[in-house]
Parts: sequence; C-alpha cells; structure tokens
Amino acid sequence: MARGPMISTLLRVAYDGGGFHGFARQPGLRTVQGELEAALQAIYRLPVLTRGASRTDAGVHALGQVIAFDPPFAIPDAGLRRALAGKLPPDLVARDVWGEAGDDGQPVQPRFANAGKHYRYRIHLAPVADPLTRRYVWPLARDVDVAAMRRAAAAFVGEHDFAAFRAADCQATTTIRRVTAVEITSHPLVHPLAAWPDACELHVDVHGDAFLKRMVRIMVGTLVEVGWGNRLPDGIAPLLRGSERHLAGRTAPAEGLVLVEVRWPGR
Amino acid sequence: MARGPMISTLLRVAYDGGGFHGFARQPGLRTVQGELEAALQAIYRLPVLTRGASRTDAGVHALGQVIAFDPPFAIPDAGLRRALAGKLPPDLVARDVWGEAGDDGQPVQPRFANAGKHYRYRIHLAPVADPLTRRYVWPLARDVDVAAMRRAAAAFVGEHDFAAFRAADCQATTTIRRVTAVEITSHPLVHPLAAWPDACELHVDVHGDAFLKRMVRIMVGTLVEVGWGNRLPDGIAPLLRGSERHLAGRTAPAEGLVLVEVRWPGR
Repeated sequence: MARGPMISTLLRVAYDGGGFHGFARQPGLRTVQGELEAALQAIYRLPVLTRGASRTDAGVHALGQVIAFDPPFAIPDAGLRRALAGKLPPDLVARDVWGEAGDDGQPVQPRFANAGKHYRYRIHLAPVADPLTRRYVWPLARDVDVAAMRRAAAAFVGEHDFAAFRAADCQATTTIRRVTAVEITSHPLVHPLAAWPDACELHVDVHGDAFLKRMVRIMVGTLVEVGWGNRLPDGIAPLLRGSERHLAGRTAPAEGLVLVEVRWPGR
Repeated sequence: MARGPMISTLLRVAYDGGGFHGFARQPGLRTVQGELEAALQAIYRLPVLTRGASRTDAGVHALGQVIAFDPPFAIPDAGLRRALAGKLPPDLVARDVWGEAGDDGQPVQPRFANAGKHYRYRIHLAPVADPLTRRYVWPLARDVDVAAMRRAAAAFVGEHDFAAFRAADCQATTTIRRVTAVEITSHPLVHPLAAWPDACELHVDVHGDAFLKRMVRIMVGTLVEVGWGNRLPDGIAPLLRGSERHLAGRTAPAEGLVLVEVRWPGR
C-alpha cells in the first residue's frame, strides 16, 4: 500500500518547571515528557512517544518548548488542542498544535529541525527575597555592576569551545557551540515596594543555535561573579577555548531559567 | 515596681498565600500566624501571640502585612530580623522590624492603628493561561472593556454600605466602609509571548480604610462582569446602599489578590 510522507504532530508547550523532575521521561518520576505522553495516551488510547527540542533540567521553566510525535491516527489540530487542555495538569499548557512533514518525508526531529533557542535568566536584586517570585528568579541581596556584566557577556557571542560551561555529566560529543546574542536588561518589579526603591529585575537573554547541559546557568553564574567584582570582564574570553569546568563560575539556580522560545522555521 | 509604657514589636511581613490556610491561626492547619508564632516561640523559647492588621483569606498573598506582638524580653531589631530569617519558611519573609508604644502606653493593635490598606488584584488577559503566573493571577481568556470597568470602579469610591460585597459568614458589626481610590491599569507581561500579541496584565488597585471579608474579591468579580458587558457601569451605585450579596457579582479567585501595603503612621 502506497503511503504519503509521514506527517508529525507538533506542540508548542509552556510549563512551570518547579513541579517536574526535568523534561526527559524517567520511570517513577513526574517529568514534562511523562505527563505529555500520559495525556496523549489517554486521548489516542495507544502509547505515544514524544521528542522534545530541548531537555530542560529539573526546575527549569519553558514558555515555548517544541515537541513532536507521530500520531497513531489523525485528529484535527483544534480538537487535539481542546483534548489536551482537558487532560494536561495546570502547570503544563499546550499553546499551539500543528502538523508538519519532516525532511525527505521522515518524522520531524525537533532537536535538529529548530532554528535556534532563546533562554532568559531572571535575577531579582533586592535586600530581602520576594516570596511571590521566589519560584521564578535568583534573588540576590548584593548589588551587581551591570555594565561590567554586559562587557563580560559580549565575549560569549560567536562560536567557541564551551567545555568550561557544561555539567560534569554532559554527554555531548562536541563542546563547540554558537551563541548569537547575550543581552542584559533591567526591569521594574511587578510589585514595586516602597521600602526597596532600588530593587529591580535583571534579565539575561541568551540566544544561540544549541546549548550544552547547564551551559546557560553556568554562563549566568560566571557573569554574576563578574558583577560582584570577583572576576574581570576580560576573564571570560580565555575560558572559551576549551577550559576546564572548575575555572568557570558557579551554576546559577534552576528556578531563574526559562526556555522562552524554540524558534521554528516558518512560524 | 514602676514600669514604662508597653513597647510592642512590629513586623512588616510578605508571604505567598498559596501554601497557607489564610492568615489567622487554626489548630492543625498551616497558617501565616501559626508559622510566625512558631518561629517567635523558637527564638524567645516562650509562647508569643501575634496580632495582624488584616486577616487575609486562604490563598491571598501579602507584601506589606503588619504584625505586632509583645516580646517577653527585648531583642535588638537587627538581631530579631536575622533570627527570623533563619527560622521562617521561604514563603514567609519579615521585611522590617521595629518597636513602638501604643496609644496611652497600651499594646499596639495593628487592626485599628493602621492608616489604611492597599490591595492589588492581578488579572491576566491571554487566550491561554501562562503556567508561570497561574499562582498569582486570575487568567481570563475573554477580553474585557477596561474603559467600562474604570467607569464602574469610580462608583466604589467614598463611604458606602458594602453589604452586597461581603462573604456570607462575614462577622463585621457594620457594613459601612470607605474606599479612597480604585485604579485600573494595564501592564505588559513579564514574559511577552510573540504568539499572544494582545496579552497583558490588568492591575485593579484598591485603597481604603478597612475592608469586609472578601470585599475586594467581590468588587473585582463584579467589575469583570462589567468588563464582559454582562452588567452596566451604572449598575454599581445601586448595589452600594446595603444590597443583598446575590445582587453583586462573583467572587474573584484568591490567587490574584495581594495585600500590597498596610500603611503605617510615620513609616
């Protein structure tokens, strides 16, 4: 029987990472992939395996993660979106649903088919941590030199060997990665408190093609050490030639990181 | 033995209401007052009873609640603040500590000694709920007419009989209350998503001397019904002459409400 090209179903999903042991399915643990596959199995009444663009760590959030799977039978996009809204838990939302054929009629592989990623790291600068944002920011009571952090961040842009900026158990076969932009911006707080007139939220926005395990969090931890005056801005460039992990800075906490967007061709 | 006037200790506290069964202590339940008194008992090694300015409902947050207690012995403000930082859970923060004598040398009663309160209600307007803010906002997928809500809100300002805007089990002896301002403002989202270009956050800021149980949440629920076109802006004034509860609108969810500030004379 002749068949047409394989049409994969794609989902754009957002989640609060605080309640998940990361993206990747793990037996006995609540994970994003596990919850998605349970919802899809309840809808299709058949096991469904999903493929994500990014394996976010435990505690890391996402607003624009992209997932693909090969449906056992066709359900119209709008109907699948409604069905998912009824089956997914409140901390995991399917924002968008669409169908797409992969290259050469193969299933879509989001890890390779995406057009780059945008991560945002949120830091709160205030003398006392705000209990209403603590799940989503790194609270710092000690002020940072933002201008020094911006000078340091410029060194990350381009193609470099990020070996110093990856987790000890990172499995990647090459440590060469390309970062296209790092922007540091300061924002007023959602709840400005009169008692903390200088309090603000820093966003470290990192754009790139692909990332090593913990890469963004180690970049941010190193930038904060620059902001505190414990490292010089010029100290970043030498770390980007395949240095050892211990020469870079601390790993910033998972809560502050959001996968804002997996860019997707044509969308 | 002659004694000077009673000096009460005051605390300005912030909390994430999501993990508490409200402010007021209740046997066997986790409450803000219960956690504060447990921390103070651990510090003073004696039972300590606290008095709050506002009995916030289960799920309602606070940034500037004020608490008073009468310490069994004196501890310097800075030392007490450090001790509380070590004893309180991460969702409850003591922002400020100071000592004060009440009128006529009596203990300070924050419920009566405060200079007014400022509540903020947060509404997210977006076609899909954002999982990263769901604990702190009321997500509305259906657009609202903000101009109509503002016209309606003006009717609340002044001294009125708010009987229609209180919980069925409210114990207050009078339902006359004075609201000094209601402001409705629109704000960009912390995480603007390209897919939701019109998404925004509405703040309903309510200022007043004192409030009945659930009063702000019923005011906001009624304003949203105006925003949806289910009520006319002119329909608010007749409700403020001692109407029955069922004539006002729904009670907005607790998660969206924050006690931003209890105003305090001289601070």
